[in-house]
Amino acid sequence: MLDKTLRMNYLYDFYQSLLTQKQRKYMSQYYLDDFSLGEIAEEFEVSRQAVYDNIKRTEVMLEEYETKLMLLTKFERRTAIVSEMKAAITNGATPEEVMSLLDSLENLN
Amino acid sequence: MLDKTLRMNYLYDFYQSLLTQKQRKYMSQYYLDDFSLGEIAEEFEVSRQAVYDNIKRTEVMLEEYETKLMLLTKFERRTAIVSEMKAAITNGATPEEVMSLLDSLENLN
Repeated sequence: MLDKTLRMNYLYDFYQSLLTQKQRKYMSQYYLDDFSLGEIAEEFEVSRQAVYDNIKRTEVMLEEYETKLMLLTKFERRTAIVSEMKAAITNGATPEEVMSLLDSLENLN
Repeated sequence: MLDKTLRMNYLYDFYQSLLTQKQRKYMSQYYLDDFSLGEIAEEFEVSRQAVYDNIKRTEVMLEEYETKLMLLTKFERRTAIVSEMKAAITNGATPEEVMSLLDSLENLN
Protein backbone atom coordinates (compact mmCIF):
# COMPACT_ATOMS: atom_id res chain seq x y z
CA MET A 1 0.00 0.00 0.00
CA LEU A 2 1.35 3.39 -0.99
CA ASP A 3 1.69 6.05 1.67
CA LYS A 4 -1.28 8.42 1.79
CA THR A 5 0.36 11.44 0.13
CA LEU A 6 1.85 9.40 -2.69
CA ARG A 7 -1.47 7.62 -3.25
CA MET A 8 -3.38 10.92 -3.37
CA ASN A 9 -0.83 12.29 -5.84
CA TYR A 10 -1.42 9.30 -8.11
CA LEU A 11 -5.21 9.38 -7.77
CA TYR A 12 -5.19 13.12 -8.41
CA ASP A 13 -3.10 12.53 -11.50
CA PHE A 14 -5.57 9.99 -12.89
CA TYR A 15 -8.85 11.67 -11.96
CA GLN A 16 -8.21 15.42 -11.80
CA SER A 17 -10.17 15.95 -15.01
CA LEU A 18 -13.31 14.82 -13.13
CA LEU A 19 -12.88 17.40 -10.34
CA THR A 20 -14.08 21.00 -10.20
CA GLN A 21 -11.69 23.91 -10.70
CA LYS A 22 -11.73 24.67 -6.95
CA GLN A 23 -11.08 21.06 -5.98
CA ARG A 24 -8.13 20.98 -8.36
CA LYS A 25 -6.64 24.16 -6.91
CA TYR A 26 -6.90 23.01 -3.30
CA MET A 27 -5.64 19.50 -4.05
CA SER A 28 -2.68 20.57 -6.15
CA GLN A 29 -1.56 23.15 -3.60
CA TYR A 30 -1.99 20.73 -0.72
CA TYR A 31 -0.62 17.53 -2.25
CA LEU A 32 1.67 18.62 -5.08
CA ASP A 33 3.01 21.92 -3.75
CA ASP A 34 2.89 20.91 -0.07
CA PHE A 35 1.16 24.09 1.12
CA SER A 36 -0.45 24.00 4.58
CA LEU A 37 -4.23 24.27 5.04
CA GLY A 38 -3.63 27.70 6.60
CA GLU A 39 -1.66 28.93 3.61
CA ILE A 40 -4.31 27.75 1.14
CA ALA A 41 -7.08 29.30 3.28
CA GLU A 42 -5.25 32.61 3.30
CA GLU A 43 -4.73 32.63 -0.46
CA PHE A 44 -8.37 31.89 -1.25
CA GLU A 45 -9.71 34.02 1.62
CA VAL A 46 -11.76 31.20 3.15
CA SER A 47 -11.56 29.47 6.52
CA ARG A 48 -9.01 26.76 7.21
CA GLN A 49 -11.96 24.48 8.00
CA ALA A 50 -13.50 25.11 4.56
CA VAL A 51 -10.28 24.09 2.82
CA TYR A 52 -9.96 21.02 5.06
CA ASP A 53 -13.57 19.92 4.38
CA ASN A 54 -13.16 20.41 0.64
CA ILE A 55 -9.95 18.39 0.53
CA LYS A 56 -11.41 15.57 2.66
CA ARG A 57 -14.47 15.35 0.38
CA THR A 58 -12.23 15.33 -2.68
CA GLU A 59 -10.13 12.51 -1.24
CA VAL A 60 -13.30 10.46 -0.77
CA MET A 61 -14.36 11.22 -4.36
CA LEU A 62 -10.96 10.16 -5.70
CA GLU A 63 -11.16 6.86 -3.82
CA GLU A 64 -14.70 6.33 -5.17
CA TYR A 65 -13.49 6.92 -8.72
CA GLU A 66 -10.68 4.45 -8.13
CA THR A 67 -13.14 1.86 -6.82
CA LYS A 68 -15.19 2.30 -9.99
CA LEU A 69 -12.52 2.71 -12.68
CA MET A 70 -9.39 1.20 -11.07
CA LEU A 71 -7.03 3.31 -13.19
CA LEU A 72 -4.28 3.30 -10.57
CA THR A 73 -4.63 -0.43 -9.96
CA LYS A 74 -4.47 -1.20 -13.67
CA PHE A 75 -1.55 1.18 -14.13
CA GLU A 76 0.36 -0.64 -11.38
CA ARG A 77 -0.37 -4.02 -12.95
CA ARG A 78 0.74 -2.89 -16.41
CA THR A 79 3.87 -1.30 -14.98
CA ALA A 80 4.75 -4.54 -13.17
CA ILE A 81 4.40 -6.60 -16.35
CA VAL A 82 6.45 -4.12 -18.40
CA SER A 83 9.21 -4.28 -15.76
CA GLU A 84 9.04 -8.06 -15.82
CA MET A 85 9.35 -8.03 -19.62
CA LYS A 86 12.35 -5.71 -19.52
CA ALA A 87 14.08 -7.94 -16.99
CA ALA A 88 13.22 -11.02 -19.06
CA ILE A 89 14.63 -9.49 -22.26
CA THR A 90 17.78 -8.36 -20.44
CA ASN A 91 18.19 -11.91 -19.17
CA GLY A 92 17.90 -13.37 -22.67
CA ALA A 93 14.29 -14.58 -22.64
CA THR A 94 13.07 -16.52 -25.68
CA PRO A 95 10.61 -14.86 -28.08
CA GLU A 96 7.95 -17.26 -26.75
CA GLU A 97 8.48 -16.04 -23.19
CA VAL A 98 8.21 -12.41 -24.27
CA MET A 99 5.07 -13.21 -26.29
CA SER A 100 3.46 -14.83 -23.28
CA LEU A 101 4.10 -11.70 -21.18
CA LEU A 102 2.64 -9.59 -23.99
CA ASP A 103 -0.49 -11.72 -23.85
CA SER A 104 -0.90 -11.07 -20.15
CA LEU A 105 -0.46 -7.37 -20.83
CA GLU A 106 -3.20 -7.49 -23.47
CA ASN A 107 -5.56 -9.29 -21.12
CA LEU A 108 -5.17 -6.49 -18.59
CA ASN A 109 -6.18 -3.77 -21.02
CA MET B 1 -13.21 6.44 -36.58
CA LEU B 2 -15.24 3.55 -35.25
CA ASP B 3 -18.84 3.22 -36.31
CA LYS B 4 -21.27 4.70 -33.79
CA THR B 5 -22.59 1.45 -32.31
CA LEU B 6 -19.14 -0.05 -31.89
CA ARG B 7 -17.83 3.17 -30.35
CA MET B 8 -20.74 3.32 -27.88
CA ASN B 9 -20.13 -0.31 -26.97
CA TYR B 10 -16.51 0.51 -26.17
CA LEU B 11 -17.30 3.71 -24.27
CA TYR B 12 -19.99 1.88 -22.31
CA ASP B 13 -17.49 -0.81 -21.47
CA PHE B 14 -14.99 1.71 -20.10
CA TYR B 15 -17.36 4.05 -18.28
CA GLN B 16 -20.42 2.04 -17.26
CA SER B 17 -19.36 2.15 -13.61
CA LEU B 18 -19.93 5.93 -13.68
CA LEU B 19 -23.53 5.61 -14.92
CA THR B 20 -26.73 5.17 -12.92
CA GLN B 21 -28.48 1.81 -12.72
CA LYS B 22 -31.20 3.02 -15.12
CA GLN B 23 -28.70 4.36 -17.64
CA ARG B 24 -26.87 1.05 -17.58
CA LYS B 25 -30.07 -0.91 -18.20
CA TYR B 26 -31.18 1.21 -21.15
CA MET B 27 -27.71 1.35 -22.69
CA SER B 28 -27.00 -2.34 -22.39
CA GLN B 29 -30.37 -3.32 -23.85
CA TYR B 30 -30.06 -0.82 -26.68
CA TYR B 31 -26.39 -1.21 -27.59
CA LEU B 32 -25.39 -4.67 -26.38
CA ASP B 33 -28.64 -6.60 -26.78
CA ASP B 34 -29.87 -4.61 -29.80
CA PHE B 35 -33.40 -4.04 -28.44
CA SER B 36 -35.47 -1.30 -30.08
CA LEU B 37 -36.48 1.86 -28.20
CA GLY B 38 -40.08 0.57 -28.30
CA GLU B 39 -39.14 -2.76 -26.73
CA ILE B 40 -37.18 -1.08 -23.94
CA ALA B 41 -40.04 1.41 -23.34
CA GLU B 42 -42.48 -1.46 -23.03
CA GLU B 43 -40.33 -3.41 -20.58
CA PHE B 44 -39.80 -0.43 -18.27
CA GLU B 45 -43.34 0.93 -18.75
CA VAL B 46 -42.18 4.37 -19.84
CA SER B 47 -42.62 6.29 -23.12
CA ARG B 48 -40.42 5.60 -26.11
CA GLN B 49 -39.41 9.28 -25.96
CA ALA B 50 -38.24 8.90 -22.35
CA VAL B 51 -35.97 5.99 -23.29
CA TYR B 52 -34.67 7.89 -26.32
CA ASP B 53 -33.90 11.02 -24.25
CA ASN B 54 -32.15 9.00 -21.55
CA ILE B 55 -29.98 7.16 -24.08
CA LYS B 56 -29.07 10.37 -25.94
CA ARG B 57 -28.07 12.04 -22.66
CA THR B 58 -26.02 9.01 -21.68
CA GLU B 59 -24.22 9.03 -25.03
CA VAL B 60 -23.24 12.66 -24.43
CA MET B 61 -22.02 11.78 -20.92
CA LEU B 62 -19.92 8.90 -22.26
CA GLU B 63 -18.30 11.20 -24.84
CA GLU B 64 -17.62 13.77 -22.10
CA TYR B 65 -15.94 11.12 -19.94
CA GLU B 66 -13.84 10.08 -22.92
CA THR B 67 -12.82 13.70 -23.53
CA LYS B 68 -11.73 13.92 -19.90
CA LEU B 69 -10.17 10.51 -19.26
CA MET B 70 -9.37 9.21 -22.79
CA LEU B 71 -9.57 5.57 -21.71
CA LEU B 72 -10.64 4.36 -25.16
CA THR B 73 -7.97 6.45 -26.91
CA LYS B 74 -5.25 5.16 -24.59
CA PHE B 75 -6.51 1.60 -24.94
CA GLU B 76 -6.29 1.88 -28.73
CA ARG B 77 -2.75 3.28 -28.52
CA ARG B 78 -1.60 0.53 -26.16
CA THR B 79 -3.22 -2.13 -28.32
CA ALA B 80 -1.46 -0.77 -31.41
CA ILE B 81 1.95 -0.89 -29.71
CA VAL B 82 1.37 -4.41 -28.38
CA SER B 83 0.44 -5.56 -31.90
CA GLU B 84 3.55 -3.88 -33.26
CA MET B 85 5.69 -5.65 -30.65
CA LYS B 86 4.17 -9.02 -31.48
CA ALA B 87 4.84 -8.50 -35.18
CA ALA B 88 8.39 -7.32 -34.41
CA ILE B 89 9.12 -10.39 -32.26
CA THR B 90 7.65 -12.71 -34.90
CA ASN B 91 9.91 -11.06 -37.46
CA GLY B 92 13.01 -11.62 -35.31
CA ALA B 93 13.45 -8.15 -33.82
CA THR B 94 16.55 -7.53 -31.70
CA PRO B 95 16.18 -7.18 -27.91
CA GLU B 96 17.00 -3.47 -28.33
CA GLU B 97 14.10 -2.99 -30.75
CA VAL B 98 11.71 -4.72 -28.37
CA MET B 99 13.02 -2.63 -25.47
CA SER B 100 12.41 0.57 -27.40
CA LEU B 101 8.78 -0.43 -28.07
CA LEU B 102 8.40 -1.25 -24.36
CA ASP B 103 9.61 2.26 -23.56
CA SER B 104 6.97 3.80 -25.78
CA LEU B 105 4.37 1.61 -24.05
CA GLU B 106 5.53 2.85 -20.66
CA ASN B 107 5.35 6.46 -21.77
CA LEU B 108 1.70 5.98 -22.70
CA ASN B 109 0.70 4.70 -19.28
